[in-house]
Amino acid sequence: MVWIIEWDTPTYGHIKAVKRVMYQGRSKYQEIWLVETYEFGKLLLLDGKSQSSEHDEFVYHEALVHPAMLLHPRPQRVLILGGGEGATLREVLKHRSVEEVVMVDIDEDVVKVSRELWGELSAGAFEDPRVRLIIGDALDYIFGSPGKFDVIIADLSDPLEAGPAYKLYTLETYRRIAELLDGGVFVTQAASPTNTPQTHAIIYNTARSAFRFAAYYHAFMNSFSGMWGFVIASNELDPRGMRAEEAERRLRERGVATRFYDAAAHLHMFSVPRHLRELIERERRVSTMSSPAYMPA
Amino acid sequence: MVWIIEWDTPTYGHIKAVKRVMYQGRSKYQEIWLVETYEFGKLLLLDGKSQSSEHDEFVYHEALVHPAMLLHPRPQRVLILGGGEGATLREVLKHRSVEEVVMVDIDEDVVKVSRELWGELSAGAFEDPRVRLIIGDALDYIFGSPGKFDVIIADLSDPLEAGPAYKLYTLETYRRIAELLDGGVFVTQAASPTNTPQTHAIIYNTARSAFRFAAYYHAFMNSFSGMWGFVIASNELDPRGMRAEEAERRLRERGVATRFYDAAAHLHMFSVPRHLRELIERERRVSTMSSPAYMPA
Amino acid sequence: MVWIIEWDTPTYGHIKAVKRVMYQGRSKYQEIWLVETYEFGKLLLLDGKSQSSEHDEFVYHEALVHPAMLLHPRPQRVLILGGGEGATLREVLKHRSVEEVVMVDIDEDVVKVSRELWGELSAGAFEDPRVRLIIGDALDYIFGSPGKFDVIIADLSDPLEAGPAYKLYTLETYRRIAELLDGGVFVTQAASPTNTPQTHAIIYNTARSAFRFAAYYHAFMNSFSGMWGFVIASNELDPRGMRAEEAERRLRERGVATRFYDAAAHLHMFSVPRHLRELIERERRVSTMSSPAYMPA
Amino acid sequence: MVWIIEWDTPTYGHIKAVKRVMYQGRSKYQEIWLVETYEFGKLLLLDGKSQSSEHDEFVYHEALVHPAMLLHPRPQRVLILGGGEGATLREVLKHRSVEEVVMVDIDEDVVKVSRELWGELSAGAFEDPRVRLIIGDALDYIFGSPGKFDVIIADLSDPLEAGPAYKLYTLETYRRIAELLDGGVFVTQAASPTNTPQTHAIIYNTARSAFRFAAYYHAFMNSFSGMWGFVIASNELDPRGMRAEEAERRLRERGVATRFYDAAAHLHMFSVPRHLRELIERERRVSTMSSPAYMPA
Repeated sequence: MVWIIEWDTPTYGHIKAVKRVMYQGRSKYQEIWLVETYEFGKLLLLDGKSQSSEHDEFVYHEALVHPAMLLHPRPQRVLILGGGEGATLREVLKHRSVEEVVMVDIDEDVVKVSRELWGELSAGAFEDPRVRLIIGDALDYIFGSPGKFDVIIADLSDPLEAGPAYKLYTLETYRRIAELLDGGVFVTQAASPTNTPQTHAIIYNTARSAFRFAAYYHAFMNSFSGMWGFVIASNELDPRGMRAEEAERRLRERGVATRFYDAAAHLHMFSVPRHLRELIERERRVSTMSSPAYMPA
Repeated sequence: MVWIIEWDTPTYGHIKAVKRVMYQGRSKYQEIWLVETYEFGKLLLLDGKSQSSEHDEFVYHEALVHPAMLLHPRPQRVLILGGGEGATLREVLKHRSVEEVVMVDIDEDVVKVSRELWGELSAGAFEDPRVRLIIGDALDYIFGSPGKFDVIIADLSDPLEAGPAYKLYTLETYRRIAELLDGGVFVTQAASPTNTPQTHAIIYNTARSAFRFAAYYHAFMNSFSGMWGFVIASNELDPRGMRAEEAERRLRERGVATRFYDAAAHLHMFSVPRHLRELIERERRVSTMSSPAYMPA
Repeated sequence: MVWIIEWDTPTYGHIKAVKRVMYQGRSKYQEIWLVETYEFGKLLLLDGKSQSSEHDEFVYHEALVHPAMLLHPRPQRVLILGGGEGATLREVLKHRSVEEVVMVDIDEDVVKVSRELWGELSAGAFEDPRVRLIIGDALDYIFGSPGKFDVIIADLSDPLEAGPAYKLYTLETYRRIAELLDGGVFVTQAASPTNTPQTHAIIYNTARSAFRFAAYYHAFMNSFSGMWGFVIASNELDPRGMRAEEAERRLRERGVATRFYDAAAHLHMFSVPRHLRELIERERRVSTMSSPAYMPA
Repeated sequence: MVWIIEWDTPTYGHIKAVKRVMYQGRSKYQEIWLVETYEFGKLLLLDGKSQSSEHDEFVYHEALVHPAMLLHPRPQRVLILGGGEGATLREVLKHRSVEEVVMVDIDEDVVKVSRELWGELSAGAFEDPRVRLIIGDALDYIFGSPGKFDVIIADLSDPLEAGPAYKLYTLETYRRIAELLDGGVFVTQAASPTNTPQTHAIIYNTARSAFRFAAYYHAFMNSFSGMWGFVIASNELDPRGMRAEEAERRLRERGVATRFYDAAAHLHMFSVPRHLRELIERERRVSTMSSPAYMPA
């Protein structure tokens, strides 16, 4: 039998049987596998790390997208950094108010494999006329002249030392994002608060240093065998100030259909148990271009 | 290197390196291992299933004990079914109002190994004069004449077909527990809502059939690589009616120190995201003595 | 990382990392994987069992083919049962005396995958004008009217209860093979004498019951993590009577180039240490159509 | 379930289930585990590497001891370097001619654990009046004034960079051993010719540089999942000159009972297939004190 083993640390890992290999190849940037598993259905792996599973990708993508989109009273122009699978795009487009989404991903092959071999992930989003897909470096894009955005969503790989993504988690980047937002909302995937709490906390600290308001929140991802963290920030809108019922009301107003996210999910994610709050708040580091913080490999 | 592999299903498992074996033996009822791991510290396994880890046993035991204890305005007499490690007992005794705790566990060896080799688990609880420890069958005990209790806590192994515990998850047992409670509060560990949602849902359905009020709630257990479920029920007190702030207020009043549980943890646990609610509420089965529901092995 | 785990028993297995998946699909008969590994190079698996690795397939195929071919003074007409990869064919064709080889394999896809994606395995053998490839059931073929052969080689999957191959390991089949040979030589792969000694011994016993002479011999296969067994038999030629030097002399005469097989390899394979001889000779069962012996799965 | 995983390389390993842990502790020199497995019975591991299993320790110990003892016409004084389990000692003492055996092992705990918890390994050998056990460094001992020996047997851990054993595999050590032997016979365990052929070949080259005659030979060890290598050497007696029948004759004369070793096993071990001979003979390095060769970890 063929298995995927993912290690959280050298002494703790998770093992999943593979039913079928749908794609395996090396892009310019990373090793891409698309497999079918027994428990999680289709599973996309980049450099051996699970990214999205059929079983619960909706949890991750709804958790990433909706709190930020709903915190903004009327998001029209949205920027997605990364997000190659197209599922973040799919969730953004559900919000009626959206007029334009720019998505910048460096790896054309991830977009292609997802679009062609696992169409439900993007569910037609790439064909939506409101979408502009740019294959390129997100860092170059935001430090260019991209104009203003209401919401910016970072759906990037983890800030590993070996990878190119870590610069997108620094104070300088977050300050530039704040400029592009002009009071709008930023959200980023922020590593696992249970497996790599330091990394999660540093992303939060960095966002807190760049924005007036910042908050972390967590959702359980079965295919990642742990809680997953997100950080949301803004210079005008306090994410802790939005009540769950208000979020759900806006969701309905905008005609957004969800499977995971609702008022209860919102409360669940933003109500972080004591020991995790303490663990996060004990960390004091901020990631900067000159002294970046990497996730332990 | 020596490893523990735990399988959620035949095609999905978790692997942890073992630093040291502190105890290994077979009791009359089960295989007992107490090991030291790298990520989770000490780890107790019964029949190859993780029960408690140094790293996060407090999450499980606080989640199991405090919502039920706090729902009751003044718990004096408490019954624990199972709970051999002594950590459930430790949490119960933190509540100042408690005058007597009866604990009934079938396996003397689990109590002994935990008490002697991992003293922090019970933290002296077995020496507390309020405690009466009975080594015996919990079913016999509750169908005998044990008197009335304010809170009954089921800290039992899962309802496997092979094991003896499944009878303690049936409608008949829950009805008897309701009699013994006389308006008090029952809580039980209730399997994983993410790994074995049917089992979790059946425990909830069974409690709902035996009690006027019942609710499920969930906490993330890193050492179980998933969310863990609990079911709380009562004929007089509605667990969904207790506000998180009120729970935390009572906690402080009673002088209970916690690491995990507080108002935010309470909200987190009782706010169950939509897809999990739907998954649980789709299940209609109830477990009875004549037609018991087993957890898939 | 992606891994292949092969279990010899439920409590003993071998784990190999996969670098690349070259083919994965289900034929009419079995699951076929062709992968690239780190230690063993290309590796073909049928129903999850390693069949041939780039690293040491020559050991298996030379061990299977040459002792039988060399025992016969002048093999002209040869029959291969199974052997879909084409490597057994490749070795047979090295013998100058060979005029015709019939190969009967049930699974066209194995032939195709091997031929197209791993050409070195057959090394052009399928294009040799002396070869007749029949896609079909080997049992039907030999119980038809195939004519006489000098050497018959069974390169089949193991006699598993689930699979179709077990009938080809029975006394009735071996008697029919003896008829078709008319004094020639039969050889069959015969499972691992170290991992499944009973199965190996039963194949030997069955051959011994059908032929006047029979012998077992063993070669170490690194990719199978154990010794591998073969059984050679004939009604006229005693395999134990051929001296290693004579075998090597014939090899040279016929212009056969080898990497593994020579006089030393011959002696190595036919000199079976005492405890293995005793283990094999303790087994008394013979496999028959009415009471077939299966390999433990 | 608890498992032992042993890695031959970072991408190839073997996995065995553990039934019972009989001992686990850290000595001054290494981590010692004694476990019971399903396939291999008792299994002793030092620093995570299998040393001896109930199932096939006799193969290793008979293969190590008897060729050297039988090559010598009348071994009276024998030195064992390492050999803490006592099984090498057990085999040596079977030879009637033996009058004194000195055994020098650095790790008292290995001797103790083996003797007390797995008595069949030494089978009373430590109580034999002919035995002198020295707990100490074998290198110090042989470079002291130990007198002359007829046979010297190195039953040491592998020449890892991290460990202390590698100095015992150098040219200087082998020359000193040749002095102590005065024409007698040296034999050493010599790593796996299939898993670490370079290390095996270097040990052979080093022995060949220190002695007039040297030979390698191999036996299959199921619990090591591969062939195991040995190197035998002497300044007077040519190991390749001893016929298998003569070895077996001497065995009987001396009243030595064996399970693995006999004339066929001797032939099997000393007849090394072509590709392994070529692999070994391609290596040219010799290990010296100033430029030692380590086994890849």
